[in-house]
Amino acid sequence: MKKAVVLLSGGLDSVTTLALAQSQGYQCHALSFDYGQIHAAELGAAIRAAQQYAVAEHKIIRAGLGDLGGSALTDRSIPVPEQPGSGIPVTYVPARNTLFLAFALGWAEVLGALDIFIGVNAVDYSGYPDCRPEYIEAFAKLANLATRSGIEGRHFSIHAPLIQLTKADIIRTGIRLGVDYAETISCYNADEQGLACRVCDACRFRAQGFAEAGVTDPTRYRT
Amino acid sequence: MKKAVVLLSGGLDSVTTLALAQSQGYQCHALSFDYGQIHAAELGAAIRAAQQYAVAEHKIIRAGLGDLGGSALTDRSIPVPEQPGSGIPVTYVPARNTLFLAFALGWAEVLGALDIFIGVNAVDYSGYPDCRPEYIEAFAKLANLATRSGIEGRHFSIHAPLIQLTKADIIRTGIRLGVDYAETISCYNADEQGLACRVCDACRFRAQGFAEAGVTDPTRYRT
Repeated sequence: MKKAVVLLSGGLDSVTTLALAQSQGYQCHALSFDYGQIHAAELGAAIRAAQQYAVAEHKIIRAGLGDLGGSALTDRSIPVPEQPGSGIPVTYVPARNTLFLAFALGWAEVLGALDIFIGVNAVDYSGYPDCRPEYIEAFAKLANLATRSGIEGRHFSIHAPLIQLTKADIIRTGIRLGVDYAETISCYNADEQGLACRVCDACRFRAQGFAEAGVTDPTRYRT
Repeated sequence: MKKAVVLLSGGLDSVTTLALAQSQGYQCHALSFDYGQIHAAELGAAIRAAQQYAVAEHKIIRAGLGDLGGSALTDRSIPVPEQPGSGIPVTYVPARNTLFLAFALGWAEVLGALDIFIGVNAVDYSGYPDCRPEYIEAFAKLANLATRSGIEGRHFSIHAPLIQLTKADIIRTGIRLGVDYAETISCYNADEQGLACRVCDACRFRAQGFAEAGVTDPTRYRT
């Protein structure tokens, strides 16, 4: 069985990505981060998904990204927008996916895995630069220059299977694979119980996805 | 004054890099990591260097790279080699520079800085893949795709001013700039007092550099 490292935040996209990797026959090693995110309830969702899919191993790594500040997701003094805006929103966490992929690459190298899965999406998304196909391609190039495996001619694949799907298509894919979306947490404002705010970007894209897919939204909202 | 983020381990190369960045007129923001390294005494050297150069700010970030294992620098069950070997040695920490540069990129983005300094060297070095010029170039490309600044046309520069220097040239450069090498710690086996082992790769390259530069080796050795 081929090993893969799967980045798992506990949100709709990453849990679907885990289900996909599992369905493709990979032995999955799930990787989550306690990075100072205010919506840390997502880690509970990550743990439940890792259990449901019986992953080979699930690591939760401490990474002090929140110490750098500069994002509404890590700094309580910057409010999460409740209306759609233009440009890159304040929920953008500088270099977050580069950091997550760096850890995934390190773990893959230790495990002898060459496949890394990340649930980024560049269709129904917040416009973060590090969710675009050209970014993922650049990381793959970097990965092969950065590592022992790359130098020895064993090349890494960075799989972003959702990158060109609509949110509705992601949900349809997950439902086909048995994902329990009630257990996933996408909300940027999720409270300690994991209840969603309904108004942030992440909630809006998610609710719209369920509506477009014709699926009853199972999200647990606060109001 | 232009701001720069300077990666600062506390070793000979990174302290020289800080001195160089400072001498070029950058306002320096130093970044160090508590990543599970066994030779954590280097962090004391980083703090002293940050003080000596009166950096604008010095952050020490927790990053659980040691939780991934697979390196003699983070796993006490893997001994640090006491003889030169061939190939990439077991002191290689998978994805370490990618992780360090990811944090530096995130901080630079928050600070509005576009210059990142890293003290990698590809001449008198342990053969780590993520110390080579092609790796640094690939990271610069990634940085401009990963970030708000990059998208807005403000491009990052990843400065690796030591990359093509011999260790003797690095030492000559640092001495010209007033670096106190007695206060730097390079040893992979440094003990809690920061005393060096004399036999690891890092000690050997360092001692050879002082010899070639005709400078008395100020390193504090255990024996």
